[in-house]
Amino acid sequence: MSQTGKGRVLLSVTGYDPKRWYELLSTERDVVLEPEGARDPSIRYAVVWKQKPNVLSALPNLRAVFSVGAGVDHLFADPGLPDVPIVRVVAENLTQYMREYIVWRVLDHHRQGIQYRAQQIGKIWDEPYQPPAGDISVGIMGMGHLGRAAAGVLLNLGFSVNGWTRTERPMEGVSCWHGRDGLPGFLAATDILVVLLPLTHDTRGIVDYRLLSQLRQKNALGGAVLINAGRGKLQRETDILRALDEGILKEVSLDVFEQEPLPETSPLWTHPNVFVTPHAAATSDPAHLVPPMLAQMDAHERGEPLTNLVNRSAGY
Amino acid sequence: MSQTGKGRVLLSVTGYDPKRWYELLSTERDVVLEPEGARDPSIRYAVVWKQKPNVLSALPNLRAVFSVGAGVDHLFADPGLPDVPIVRVVAENLTQYMREYIVWRVLDHHRQGIQYRAQQIGKIWDEPYQPPAGDISVGIMGMGHLGRAAAGVLLNLGFSVNGWTRTERPMEGVSCWHGRDGLPGFLAATDILVVLLPLTHDTRGIVDYRLLSQLRQKNALGGAVLINAGRGKLQRETDILRALDEGILKEVSLDVFEQEPLPETSPLWTHPNVFVTPHAAATSDPAHLVPPMLAQMDAHERGEPLTNLVNRSAGY
Repeated sequence: MSQTGKGRVLLSVTGYDPKRWYELLSTERDVVLEPEGARDPSIRYAVVWKQKPNVLSALPNLRAVFSVGAGVDHLFADPGLPDVPIVRVVAENLTQYMREYIVWRVLDHHRQGIQYRAQQIGKIWDEPYQPPAGDISVGIMGMGHLGRAAAGVLLNLGFSVNGWTRTERPMEGVSCWHGRDGLPGFLAATDILVVLLPLTHDTRGIVDYRLLSQLRQKNALGGAVLINAGRGKLQRETDILRALDEGILKEVSLDVFEQEPLPETSPLWTHPNVFVTPHAAATSDPAHLVPPMLAQMDAHERGEPLTNLVNRSAGY
Repeated sequence: MSQTGKGRVLLSVTGYDPKRWYELLSTERDVVLEPEGARDPSIRYAVVWKQKPNVLSALPNLRAVFSVGAGVDHLFADPGLPDVPIVRVVAENLTQYMREYIVWRVLDHHRQGIQYRAQQIGKIWDEPYQPPAGDISVGIMGMGHLGRAAAGVLLNLGFSVNGWTRTERPMEGVSCWHGRDGLPGFLAATDILVVLLPLTHDTRGIVDYRLLSQLRQKNALGGAVLINAGRGKLQRETDILRALDEGILKEVSLDVFEQEPLPETSPLWTHPNVFVTPHAAATSDPAHLVPPMLAQMDAHERGEPLTNLVNRSAGY
């Protein structure tokens, strides 16, 4: 151990270059980049994204794992994930990006951006009926930190907001449903569905044809809208395309996909009523995410409790 | 006079069918549709949109004029406009639509909607740098009721907000400039310019090449953005196109135009970095605007002061 006796940090990331994370974590702690550090007893913390299996379980003194993204499903893919606290990243920066993306996509569908862009191509000067926000219900599946932040701005803009959560979780001004029993009521009252759920055994594939066909289709927008900024594997893309073709869905915005990058062969790329972004709703910017991680490590070493912990039995 | 002695209302509208206005005003008052009612001494109020010249001046007992739109420049085109109070329409509905339009367009430019739509056409999976909202300054010219409402939501989303007004008009959280002397400082600190000014002698053509070239071009968005939801005659469209071609402007959203409907020959229709809507930012919906008009007429007859009056010397 160096840096005045602070526990070392293992950085275990696959899929992208962790250079900035390494630099920023190194400003305050000794950082070891995997595959270095195997079985190192001085490592107390691991900062991970899709870590290689069984690397963490081999560390004898690991005290906590930090995920570099808001979702933690990537962590549970490791069969040797040790039984230590898992800290979810919560940063104002990440919340702001996600809230912004949700409000942007809701407004673009609500204000008929797809229709206006098509009219512009045809040089058509025509004003379709514009419902007021109060006549539109935005339903958010997953009312955690990010969902609640988006709900706040949508309420402020005058939308009706519905929320659906696994267990009861009320929010002022929001009509709330919970559990599988609450799902039909939530969907039947929702015009624009926003999916922000974590990916767990319970939620995998939840956005399927059966769910989509329960959304309110006879509404002031002329159809239901889907926005998914959660995880790609929450959705069944063939079902989304079928719902679009059958008129169950009017328009869709997707930031996440069953397979990423979205394959060139996917019909989602070219569908006129689908808007695609490349998993860009909320970027994990290390400059904003590393400081709260370092602060949590310091607090932990002072004997204070870790915060924003993942509920392992729920899987998120 | 009928309807329990209430003053009659002249409805004087050109350019569209005032049927719904007539029906809704008639629920509480005797309404006369121009060209009926000429010189009628029982008419106390006029509800107008681009009224024919010298109709109002011939009414011997006119007490107040109500504009059916937020802008009142159409009224002043009448050389015989009598010297009675002019009431501007202020309705929560109108404010909400305009606030929504502004936030929608700011977010679409900020979140790089034009680039993402182009990438989708090319099936390109690529995430350009996304600046946080706090690194972007939205500058609002015209901080009246509508501008302040938009500023509130933009602040809530984390943007820096600048305001420019004719006379000093501070707002908490907003960096404010005023007058011609304040314009250079305001423009130099603005990345996304939102124009919500009234059209007056002072503001006609204000959005010209000289003004646009003072916007902050070296910014986190990679260029300055213009959004005009005020009046078309505030802008010089040849100057906007020149600023786009020279890279002074990155992107533009226009809801209003020098000539409306926008002529088919206008290059704005086909410019890849211009988004066109047909003067649809905030619809004057009679169902929402008539009740506050009727309430003001009632209050006036009870001897209470009229509110939301136009400042005639300022022209708005």
